[in-house]
Amino acid sequence: MKLHGYFRSSAAFRVRIALNLKGLAYDNAFVHLRKGDQRSVAYLGLNPQALVPALEDGAHLLTQSLAIVEYLDETHPAMPLLPKTPPERARVRALAQIVACDIHPIDNLRVLQYLAKELGADEAAVGRWFNHWITTGFTGLEAMLAKDAATGRFCHGDTPGLADICLVPQVFNSKRYSLDLGPYPTIRRIYDACMALPAFDAAQPAKQPDAEL
Amino acid sequence: MKLHGYFRSSAAFRVRIALNLKGLAYDNAFVHLRKGDQRSVAYLGLNPQALVPALEDGAHLLTQSLAIVEYLDETHPAMPLLPKTPPERARVRALAQIVACDIHPIDNLRVLQYLAKELGADEAAVGRWFNHWITTGFTGLEAMLAKDAATGRFCHGDTPGLADICLVPQVFNSKRYSLDLGPYPTIRRIYDACMALPAFDAAQPAKQPDAEL
Repeated sequence: MKLHGYFRSSAAFRVRIALNLKGLAYDNAFVHLRKGDQRSVAYLGLNPQALVPALEDGAHLLTQSLAIVEYLDETHPAMPLLPKTPPERARVRALAQIVACDIHPIDNLRVLQYLAKELGADEAAVGRWFNHWITTGFTGLEAMLAKDAATGRFCHGDTPGLADICLVPQVFNSKRYSLDLGPYPTIRRIYDACMALPAFDAAQPAKQPDAEL
Repeated sequence: MKLHGYFRSSAAFRVRIALNLKGLAYDNAFVHLRKGDQRSVAYLGLNPQALVPALEDGAHLLTQSLAIVEYLDETHPAMPLLPKTPPERARVRALAQIVACDIHPIDNLRVLQYLAKELGADEAAVGRWFNHWITTGFTGLEAMLAKDAATGRFCHGDTPGLADICLVPQVFNSKRYSLDLGPYPTIRRIYDACMALPAFDAAQPAKQPDAEL
């Protein structure tokens, strides 16, 4: 398998964690988002959306991180990333989608660039925007995690899964504008439990071959 | 089942289509987003994220539209909304997520309100923002649909599914600031095929009991 990604991309980070949790080896193809590699003719031929990640698995070219993680879970069922019953699966997918639909896309690089270039937002205003959407999302997520007995060492029970795969990169993002994570003790506890696992630790941006420090 | 929704919410629209395609009867509970019903104590008790939809199914309370649609598909397998093989399922989920992750959240009501109130964007600037993200997303989506033989009468083959469920509400949204859909002939063709089906037609905002014309 070949992962087209970028060290700082949260969505690529999710797929790296899933590959590691499954114990799957993969090659890297780096797409430098700040240099615009995602808009090259070659990359647009792979993914017309001009976003990372994209995963090549034999003849199959897969895009969208959550779709890729579910594909990996369906094709490599050992170490399942989703629980078995439909209500539990729905809970885990909902927790994942709070991050993947309602926080991360609004704080993505291209959105921040639009705020600055097209709307004239200065650095402070961009920072307030960034933290506002994480705060809004984490407030709901913390409440859902804290009130539910299904939450365990990880977002759902005591094994890591799809929701944790989304949570950890978002906590990484929250450090960008120094968001105070004090109000989110459950999120912090789960983040710490995840980062103690090699699969999460090895997937972090600073440990990728294309990392720029 | 009881659906907590709002006539104009794209995410609630998706769930209405899925319920109709499955032939499932449901009761409505209306959450008036412009009046702030989603921030009532009662509703926050159901969904701390203060978003619609939420679906009650017996003792289960489900949130996040894509998670709900997959739940309905798993609990009511007749009229499947996802294909059978993992690569095909990944394709349909990716098409759905282009809308659900990369277009709709950035153009959501709460984001437009933030642009106006916090960043001082005027109506014209909000309209440009709105159409920019649909244009960006639809350009990738159109290319993915047009180039792939797996696209049929609908986004994947000749039966409607998860990707169509996301596409149709987004096309409805595109009319808000009069986006020209000329560059997206495949999207328009699939939209027309969907809207010819009673399950899609009956789910549209104007036909809901809480619709305001």
